[in-house]
Amino acid sequence: MFITFEGIDFSGKTTQVQLLAKYLINKGFRVITLREPGGTEISEKIRQILLEPKNELTSITELFLFEASRSDVVRKVIKPHLEKGSIVICDRFWDSTIAYQGYGRQIPIDFIEKCNFFASEGLEPDITFLLDIDIEIMKRRAKTNIFDRIESEGIEFLKRVANGFRVLAKQYNERIFVIDGSNTIEDIHKKVVEIIENRLKGRDE
Amino acid sequence: MFITFEGIDFSGKTTQVQLLAKYLINKGFRVITLREPGGTEISEKIRQILLEPKNELTSITELFLFEASRSDVVRKVIKPHLEKGSIVICDRFWDSTIAYQGYGRQIPIDFIEKCNFFASEGLEPDITFLLDIDIEIMKRRAKTNIFDRIESEGIEFLKRVANGFRVLAKQYNERIFVIDGSNTIEDIHKKVVEIIENRLKGRDE
Repeated sequence: MFITFEGIDFSGKTTQVQLLAKYLINKGFRVITLREPGGTEISEKIRQILLEPKNELTSITELFLFEASRSDVVRKVIKPHLEKGSIVICDRFWDSTIAYQGYGRQIPIDFIEKCNFFASEGLEPDITFLLDIDIEIMKRRAKTNIFDRIESEGIEFLKRVANGFRVLAKQYNERIFVIDGSNTIEDIHKKVVEIIENRLKGRDE
Repeated sequence: MFITFEGIDFSGKTTQVQLLAKYLINKGFRVITLREPGGTEISEKIRQILLEPKNELTSITELFLFEASRSDVVRKVIKPHLEKGSIVICDRFWDSTIAYQGYGRQIPIDFIEKCNFFASEGLEPDITFLLDIDIEIMKRRAKTNIFDRIESEGIEFLKRVANGFRVLAKQYNERIFVIDGSNTIEDIHKKVVEIIENRLKGRDE
Protein backbone atom coordinates (compact mmCIF):
# COMPACT_ATOMS: atom_id res chain seq x y z
CA MET A 1 0.00 0.00 0.00
CA PHE A 2 1.27 3.43 -1.03
CA ILE A 3 0.03 6.28 1.18
CA THR A 4 0.80 9.98 0.71
CA PHE A 5 0.23 13.05 2.88
CA GLU A 6 -0.33 16.38 1.23
CA GLY A 7 -0.98 19.96 2.25
CA ILE A 8 0.76 23.30 2.57
CA ASP A 9 3.61 23.77 5.03
CA PHE A 10 2.68 23.67 8.72
CA SER A 11 -0.38 21.57 7.94
CA GLY A 12 1.05 18.83 10.19
CA LYS A 13 1.96 16.30 7.51
CA THR A 14 5.28 15.24 8.97
CA THR A 15 3.81 14.57 12.43
CA GLN A 16 1.00 12.49 10.95
CA VAL A 17 3.38 10.48 8.75
CA GLN A 18 5.36 9.51 11.87
CA LEU A 19 2.25 8.68 13.92
CA LEU A 20 0.75 6.52 11.19
CA ALA A 21 4.05 4.73 10.63
CA LYS A 22 4.32 3.94 14.36
CA TYR A 23 0.72 2.70 14.39
CA LEU A 24 1.23 0.39 11.41
CA ILE A 25 4.57 -0.93 12.66
CA ASN A 26 2.88 -1.80 15.97
CA LYS A 27 0.32 -3.75 13.98
CA GLY A 28 3.12 -5.80 12.45
CA PHE A 29 3.47 -4.17 9.04
CA ARG A 30 6.78 -3.35 7.44
CA VAL A 31 6.64 0.41 6.89
CA ILE A 32 8.94 2.87 5.19
CA THR A 33 8.51 6.64 5.42
CA LEU A 34 9.90 9.15 2.97
CA ARG A 35 9.84 12.86 2.45
CA GLU A 36 9.84 14.25 -1.04
CA PRO A 37 12.30 15.38 -2.29
CA GLY A 38 14.69 13.19 -0.35
CA GLY A 39 15.30 9.58 0.55
CA THR A 40 18.14 8.81 -1.85
CA GLU A 41 21.60 10.30 -2.22
CA ILE A 42 20.70 12.00 -5.50
CA SER A 43 17.36 13.19 -4.24
CA GLU A 44 18.99 14.77 -1.17
CA LYS A 45 21.47 16.58 -3.43
CA ILE A 46 18.57 17.91 -5.49
CA ARG A 47 16.77 18.91 -2.27
CA GLN A 48 19.76 21.04 -1.30
CA ILE A 49 19.54 22.97 -4.58
CA LEU A 50 15.77 23.40 -4.20
CA LEU A 51 15.72 24.61 -0.63
CA GLU A 52 18.82 26.82 -0.57
CA PRO A 53 17.34 30.31 0.02
CA LYS A 54 19.97 32.10 -2.06
CA ASN A 55 19.20 30.03 -5.18
CA GLU A 56 16.84 31.93 -7.43
CA LEU A 57 15.22 29.20 -9.46
CA THR A 58 12.90 29.58 -12.40
CA SER A 59 9.55 27.83 -11.91
CA ILE A 60 10.54 25.40 -14.63
CA THR A 61 13.87 24.53 -13.00
CA GLU A 62 11.98 23.93 -9.78
CA LEU A 63 9.48 21.63 -11.52
CA PHE A 64 12.17 19.62 -13.28
CA LEU A 65 14.25 19.24 -10.11
CA PHE A 66 11.26 17.88 -8.19
CA GLU A 67 10.53 15.43 -11.01
CA ALA A 68 14.19 14.40 -11.34
CA SER A 69 14.20 13.60 -7.64
CA ARG A 70 10.90 11.73 -7.87
CA SER A 71 12.11 9.43 -10.63
CA ASP A 72 15.14 8.47 -8.55
CA VAL A 73 13.09 7.79 -5.40
CA VAL A 74 10.33 5.86 -7.20
CA ARG A 75 12.80 3.58 -8.97
CA LYS A 76 15.21 3.01 -6.10
CA VAL A 77 13.02 3.13 -2.99
CA ILE A 78 9.25 3.24 -3.44
CA LYS A 79 8.78 0.55 -6.09
CA PRO A 80 11.23 -1.98 -4.58
CA HIS A 81 9.61 -1.62 -1.15
CA LEU A 82 6.07 -1.92 -2.50
CA GLU A 83 7.12 -5.03 -4.40
CA LYS A 84 8.45 -6.55 -1.16
CA GLY A 85 5.05 -5.95 0.45
CA SER A 86 5.97 -2.97 2.63
CA ILE A 87 3.68 -0.04 3.23
CA VAL A 88 5.26 3.16 1.88
CA ILE A 89 4.20 6.47 3.43
CA CYS A 90 5.33 9.56 1.58
CA ASP A 91 5.42 13.15 2.87
CA ARG A 92 4.36 14.89 -0.39
CA PHE A 93 4.12 13.26 -3.82
CA TRP A 94 2.71 14.25 -7.16
CA ASP A 95 -0.28 16.24 -5.90
CA SER A 96 2.20 18.70 -4.39
CA THR A 97 3.75 19.25 -7.79
CA ILE A 98 0.37 20.03 -9.33
CA ALA A 99 -0.64 22.27 -6.41
CA TYR A 100 2.66 24.20 -6.12
CA GLN A 101 4.04 24.26 -9.66
CA GLY A 102 0.67 24.10 -11.44
CA TYR A 103 -1.81 26.12 -9.38
CA GLY A 104 0.88 28.10 -7.54
CA ARG A 105 3.43 28.88 -10.26
CA GLN A 106 0.91 28.51 -13.07
CA ILE A 107 2.82 26.07 -15.25
CA PRO A 108 0.25 24.28 -17.47
CA ILE A 109 -1.21 21.40 -15.48
CA ASP A 110 -1.43 18.96 -18.39
CA PHE A 111 2.33 19.28 -18.84
CA ILE A 112 2.94 18.66 -15.12
CA GLU A 113 0.71 15.59 -15.26
CA LYS A 114 2.90 14.22 -18.05
CA CYS A 115 6.04 14.93 -16.03
CA ASN A 116 4.46 13.23 -12.99
CA PHE A 117 3.58 10.23 -15.10
CA PHE A 118 7.10 9.78 -16.46
CA ALA A 119 8.75 10.45 -13.10
CA SER A 120 6.55 8.01 -11.18
CA GLU A 121 6.47 5.41 -13.96
CA GLY A 122 2.70 5.48 -13.73
CA LEU A 123 2.69 4.69 -10.00
CA GLU A 124 -0.26 6.30 -8.18
CA PRO A 125 -0.86 6.51 -4.42
CA ASP A 126 -3.56 4.19 -3.07
CA ILE A 127 -4.65 6.69 -0.44
CA THR A 128 -3.81 10.37 -0.06
CA PHE A 129 -4.55 12.48 3.01
CA LEU A 130 -4.91 16.17 2.40
CA LEU A 131 -4.40 18.07 5.65
CA ASP A 132 -6.33 21.19 4.88
CA ILE A 133 -5.49 24.41 6.76
CA ASP A 134 -6.09 28.06 6.06
CA ILE A 135 -3.19 30.35 5.32
CA GLU A 136 -3.98 32.19 8.58
CA ILE A 137 -3.34 29.04 10.60
CA MET A 138 -0.14 28.45 8.67
CA LYS A 139 1.07 31.94 9.54
CA ARG A 140 0.21 31.45 13.21
CA ARG A 141 2.02 28.13 13.35
CA ALA A 142 5.08 29.50 11.57
CA LYS A 143 6.53 31.19 14.64
CA THR A 144 9.95 31.62 13.17
CA ASN A 145 10.93 34.12 10.51
CA ILE A 146 13.58 31.83 9.11
CA PHE A 147 11.55 30.37 6.28
CA ASP A 148 13.14 28.32 3.58
CA ARG A 149 12.80 29.62 0.05
CA ILE A 150 9.46 28.07 -0.74
CA GLU A 151 7.89 28.96 2.59
CA SER A 152 8.86 32.60 2.16
CA GLU A 153 6.63 32.90 -0.92
CA GLY A 154 3.85 35.44 -0.99
CA ILE A 155 0.44 34.90 0.50
CA GLU A 156 -1.28 35.02 -2.88
CA PHE A 157 0.89 32.17 -4.11
CA LEU A 158 0.08 30.08 -1.03
CA LYS A 159 -3.62 30.72 -1.44
CA ARG A 160 -3.46 29.42 -5.00
CA VAL A 161 -1.62 26.33 -3.74
CA ALA A 162 -4.12 25.63 -0.94
CA ASN A 163 -6.95 26.05 -3.43
CA GLY A 164 -5.17 23.75 -5.88
CA PHE A 165 -5.07 20.98 -3.29
CA ARG A 166 -8.83 21.37 -2.77
CA VAL A 167 -9.49 21.17 -6.49
CA LEU A 168 -7.40 17.99 -6.69
CA ALA A 169 -9.31 16.51 -3.74
CA LYS A 170 -12.57 16.99 -5.65
CA GLN A 171 -11.10 15.66 -8.87
CA TYR A 172 -9.70 12.50 -7.23
CA ASN A 173 -12.28 12.07 -4.51
CA GLU A 174 -11.88 8.31 -4.34
CA ARG A 175 -8.19 8.58 -3.56
CA ILE A 176 -7.84 11.85 -1.65
CA PHE A 177 -9.33 12.20 1.85
CA VAL A 178 -9.56 15.77 3.12
CA ILE A 179 -8.96 16.17 6.84
CA ASP A 180 -9.30 19.48 8.67
CA GLY A 181 -5.73 20.25 9.68
CA SER A 182 -6.82 22.71 12.36
CA ASN A 183 -7.94 19.80 14.55
CA THR A 184 -5.68 18.40 17.26
CA ILE A 185 -2.87 16.03 16.34
CA GLU A 186 -4.71 13.21 18.12
CA ASP A 187 -8.01 13.82 16.35
CA ILE A 188 -6.34 13.92 12.95
CA HIS A 189 -4.42 10.73 13.69
CA LYS A 190 -7.66 8.99 14.77
CA LYS A 191 -9.33 9.99 11.52
CA VAL A 192 -6.35 8.77 9.48
CA VAL A 193 -6.31 5.42 11.28
CA GLU A 194 -10.06 4.98 10.76
CA ILE A 195 -9.69 5.45 7.00
CA ILE A 196 -6.64 3.18 6.81
CA GLU A 197 -8.38 0.46 8.87
CA ASN A 198 -11.37 0.56 6.55
CA ARG A 199 -9.11 0.14 3.57
CA LEU A 200 -7.16 -2.71 5.19
CA LYS A 201 -10.45 -4.45 6.08
CA GLY A 202 -11.59 -4.06 2.48
CA ARG A 203 -8.41 -5.83 1.38
CA ASP A 204 -8.87 -8.77 3.73
CA GLU A 205 -12.42 -9.51 2.65
CA MET B 1 22.48 35.46 -32.90
CA PHE B 2 22.24 32.16 -31.07
CA ILE B 3 24.59 29.46 -32.39
CA THR B 4 24.82 25.88 -31.11
CA PHE B 5 27.27 23.06 -31.74
CA GLU B 6 26.07 19.48 -31.53
CA GLY B 7 27.49 16.01 -31.93
CA ILE B 8 28.62 13.03 -29.91
CA ASP B 9 31.61 13.31 -27.59
CA PHE B 10 35.00 13.74 -29.27
CA SER B 11 33.34 15.25 -32.34
CA GLY B 12 35.38 18.40 -31.77
CA LYS B 13 32.56 20.71 -30.62
CA THR B 14 34.46 22.41 -27.84
CA THR B 15 37.44 23.28 -30.06
CA GLN B 16 35.15 24.71 -32.73
CA VAL B 17 33.18 26.76 -30.21
CA GLN B 18 36.42 28.39 -29.06
CA LEU B 19 37.71 29.00 -32.60
CA LEU B 20 34.45 30.56 -33.74
CA ALA B 21 34.26 32.74 -30.63
CA LYS B 22 37.79 34.02 -31.26
CA TYR B 23 36.98 34.70 -34.89
CA LEU B 24 33.82 36.67 -34.06
CA ILE B 25 35.48 38.61 -31.24
CA ASN B 26 38.24 39.64 -33.67
CA LYS B 27 35.52 40.93 -35.99
CA GLY B 28 34.26 43.15 -33.18
CA PHE B 29 31.26 41.18 -31.94
CA ARG B 30 30.48 40.65 -28.29
CA VAL B 31 30.47 36.89 -27.85
CA ILE B 32 29.63 34.62 -24.98
CA THR B 33 30.34 30.88 -25.00
CA LEU B 34 28.61 28.30 -22.83
CA ARG B 35 28.65 24.59 -22.35
CA GLU B 36 25.46 22.78 -21.44
CA PRO B 37 24.88 21.90 -18.67
CA GLY B 38 26.90 24.65 -17.01
CA GLY B 39 27.34 28.39 -17.04
CA THR B 40 25.43 29.29 -13.87
CA GLU B 41 25.94 28.29 -10.26
CA ILE B 42 22.83 26.08 -10.26
CA SER B 43 23.62 24.56 -13.61
CA GLU B 44 27.14 23.64 -12.47
CA LYS B 45 25.68 21.93 -9.38
CA ILE B 46 23.33 19.96 -11.62
CA ARG B 47 26.26 19.11 -13.90
CA GLN B 48 28.09 17.57 -10.92
CA ILE B 49 25.15 15.26 -10.25
CA LEU B 50 24.89 14.32 -13.93
CA LEU B 51 28.54 13.56 -14.56
CA GLU B 52 29.49 11.84 -11.30
CA PRO B 53 30.29 8.29 -12.44
CA LYS B 54 29.03 6.67 -9.24
CA ASN B 55 25.55 8.19 -9.60
CA GLU B 56 23.20 5.71 -11.20
CA LEU B 57 20.52 7.90 -12.69
CA THR B 58 17.27 6.82 -14.28
CA SER B 59 16.88 8.09 -17.85
CA ILE B 60 14.05 10.29 -16.63
CA THR B 61 16.12 11.85 -13.83
CA GLU B 62 18.82 12.54 -16.40
CA LEU B 63 16.32 14.21 -18.75
CA PHE B 64 14.81 16.38 -16.02
CA LEU B 65 18.22 17.45 -14.70
CA PHE B 66 19.32 18.57 -18.16
CA GLU B 67 16.08 20.51 -18.59
CA ALA B 68 16.30 22.04 -15.09
CA SER B 69 19.78 23.28 -15.93
CA ARG B 70 18.66 24.60 -19.30
CA SER B 71 15.86 26.68 -17.85
CA ASP B 72 18.30 28.35 -15.46
CA VAL B 73 20.87 29.08 -18.18
CA VAL B 74 18.32 30.34 -20.72
CA ARG B 75 16.71 32.73 -18.24
CA LYS B 76 19.87 34.01 -16.56
CA VAL B 77 22.50 33.95 -19.31
CA ILE B 78 21.37 33.22 -22.86
CA LYS B 79 18.30 35.47 -23.11
CA PRO B 80 19.85 38.50 -21.33
CA HIS B 81 22.93 38.34 -23.57
CA LEU B 82 20.91 37.93 -26.76
CA GLU B 83 18.80 40.92 -25.72
CA LYS B 84 21.96 43.01 -25.28
CA GLY B 85 22.95 42.10 -28.83
CA SER B 86 25.71 39.60 -28.04
CA ILE B 87 26.30 36.44 -30.05
CA VAL B 88 25.77 33.38 -27.84
CA ILE B 89 27.58 30.16 -28.78
CA CYS B 90 26.46 27.07 -26.93
CA ASP B 91 28.27 23.72 -26.70
CA ARG B 92 25.17 21.47 -26.83
CA PHE B 93 21.55 22.60 -26.54
CA TRP B 94 18.19 21.00 -27.09
CA ASP B 95 19.15 18.77 -30.03
CA SER B 96 21.45 16.90 -27.63
CA THR B 97 18.51 16.16 -25.36
CA ILE B 98 16.51 14.71 -28.23
CA ALA B 99 19.48 12.72 -29.53
CA TYR B 100 20.68 11.35 -26.17
CA GLN B 101 17.51 11.06 -24.09
CA GLY B 102 15.13 10.50 -27.01
CA TYR B 103 16.97 8.41 -29.60
CA GLY B 104 19.55 7.09 -27.12
CA ARG B 105 17.49 6.36 -24.00
CA GLN B 106 14.23 5.99 -25.92
CA ILE B 107 12.12 8.42 -23.91
CA PRO B 108 9.21 9.52 -26.17
CA ILE B 109 10.45 12.37 -28.34
CA ASP B 110 7.21 14.37 -28.26
CA PHE B 111 7.52 14.57 -24.47
CA ILE B 112 11.15 15.72 -24.71
CA GLU B 113 10.16 18.37 -27.22
CA LYS B 114 7.64 19.71 -24.69
CA CYS B 115 10.31 19.73 -21.98
CA ASN B 116 12.70 21.53 -24.34
CA PHE B 117 10.04 24.10 -25.12
CA PHE B 118 9.31 24.89 -21.48
CA ALA B 119 12.98 24.88 -20.48
CA SER B 120 14.07 27.20 -23.30
CA GLU B 121 10.96 29.39 -23.11
CA GLY B 122 10.50 28.78 -26.82
CA LEU B 123 13.99 30.02 -27.70
CA GLU B 124 15.43 28.24 -30.75
CA PRO B 125 19.00 28.41 -32.06
CA ASP B 126 19.47 30.46 -35.23
CA ILE B 127 22.19 28.17 -36.53
CA THR B 128 23.27 24.72 -35.36
CA PHE B 129 26.42 22.93 -36.47
CA LEU B 130 26.32 19.18 -36.24
CA LEU B 131 29.85 17.79 -36.19
CA ASP B 132 29.22 14.35 -37.53
CA ILE B 133 31.68 11.56 -36.72
CA ASP B 134 31.44 7.79 -36.72
CA ILE B 135 31.61 5.87 -33.48
CA GLU B 136 34.90 4.36 -34.70
CA ILE B 137 36.49 7.80 -34.86
CA MET B 138 35.13 8.62 -31.44
CA LYS B 139 36.74 5.48 -30.01
CA ARG B 140 40.05 6.27 -31.65
CA ARG B 141 40.04 9.84 -30.33
CA ALA B 142 39.10 8.72 -26.82
CA LYS B 143 42.58 7.66 -25.83
CA THR B 144 41.82 7.51 -22.17
CA ASN B 145 39.79 4.86 -20.42
CA ILE B 146 38.59 7.27 -17.78
CA PHE B 147 35.26 8.13 -19.36
CA ASP B 148 32.64 10.05 -17.48
CA ARG B 149 29.34 8.28 -16.93
CA ILE B 150 27.74 9.26 -20.21
CA GLU B 151 30.82 8.55 -22.29
CA SER B 152 31.10 5.07 -20.85
CA GLU B 153 27.75 4.05 -22.33
CA GLY B 154 27.57 1.14 -24.70
CA ILE B 155 28.30 1.36 -28.37
CA GLU B 156 24.70 0.57 -29.36
CA PHE B 157 23.50 3.53 -27.32
CA LEU B 158 26.02 5.84 -29.00
CA LYS B 159 25.03 4.61 -32.44
CA ARG B 160 21.40 5.48 -31.71
CA VAL B 161 22.50 8.94 -30.55
CA ALA B 162 24.65 9.58 -33.64
CA ASN B 163 21.77 8.45 -35.83
CA GLY B 164 19.36 10.67 -33.87
CA PHE B 165 21.48 13.72 -34.63
CA ARG B 166 21.35 12.84 -38.35
CA VAL B 167 17.57 12.48 -38.24
CA LEU B 168 17.31 15.88 -36.56
CA ALA B 169 19.57 17.42 -39.18
CA LYS B 170 17.20 16.25 -41.91
CA GLN B 171 14.14 17.35 -39.98
CA TYR B 172 15.51 20.86 -39.33
CA ASN B 173 17.60 21.22 -42.46
CA GLU B 174 17.27 25.00 -42.56
CA ARG B 175 18.76 25.39 -39.10
CA ILE B 176 21.19 22.49 -38.77
CA PHE B 177 24.34 22.33 -40.90
CA VAL B 178 26.08 18.97 -40.95
CA ILE B 179 29.87 19.12 -41.10
CA ASP B 180 32.07 16.06 -41.41
CA GLY B 181 33.83 15.94 -38.05
CA SER B 182 36.60 13.70 -39.38
CA ASN B 183 38.07 16.67 -41.26
CA THR B 184 40.92 18.72 -39.82
CA ILE B 185 40.19 21.35 -37.19
CA GLU B 186 41.16 24.06 -39.67
CA ASP B 187 38.90 22.75 -42.44
CA ILE B 188 35.93 22.48 -40.09
CA HIS B 189 36.54 26.00 -38.80
CA LYS B 190 36.71 27.35 -42.36
CA LYS B 191 33.39 25.72 -43.18
CA VAL B 192 31.78 27.10 -40.01
CA VAL B 193 33.04 30.62 -40.75
CA GLU B 194 31.76 30.42 -44.31
CA ILE B 195 28.25 29.55 -43.13
CA ILE B 196 28.28 32.22 -40.40
CA GLU B 197 29.55 34.88 -42.83
CA ASN B 198 26.74 34.04 -45.25
CA ARG B 199 24.22 34.41 -42.48
CA LEU B 200 25.71 37.71 -41.27
CA LYS B 201 25.67 39.06 -44.83
CA GLY B 202 22.03 38.04 -45.12
CA ARG B 203 21.26 40.10 -42.04
CA ASP B 204 22.97 43.24 -43.31
CA GLU B 205 21.05 43.31 -46.57
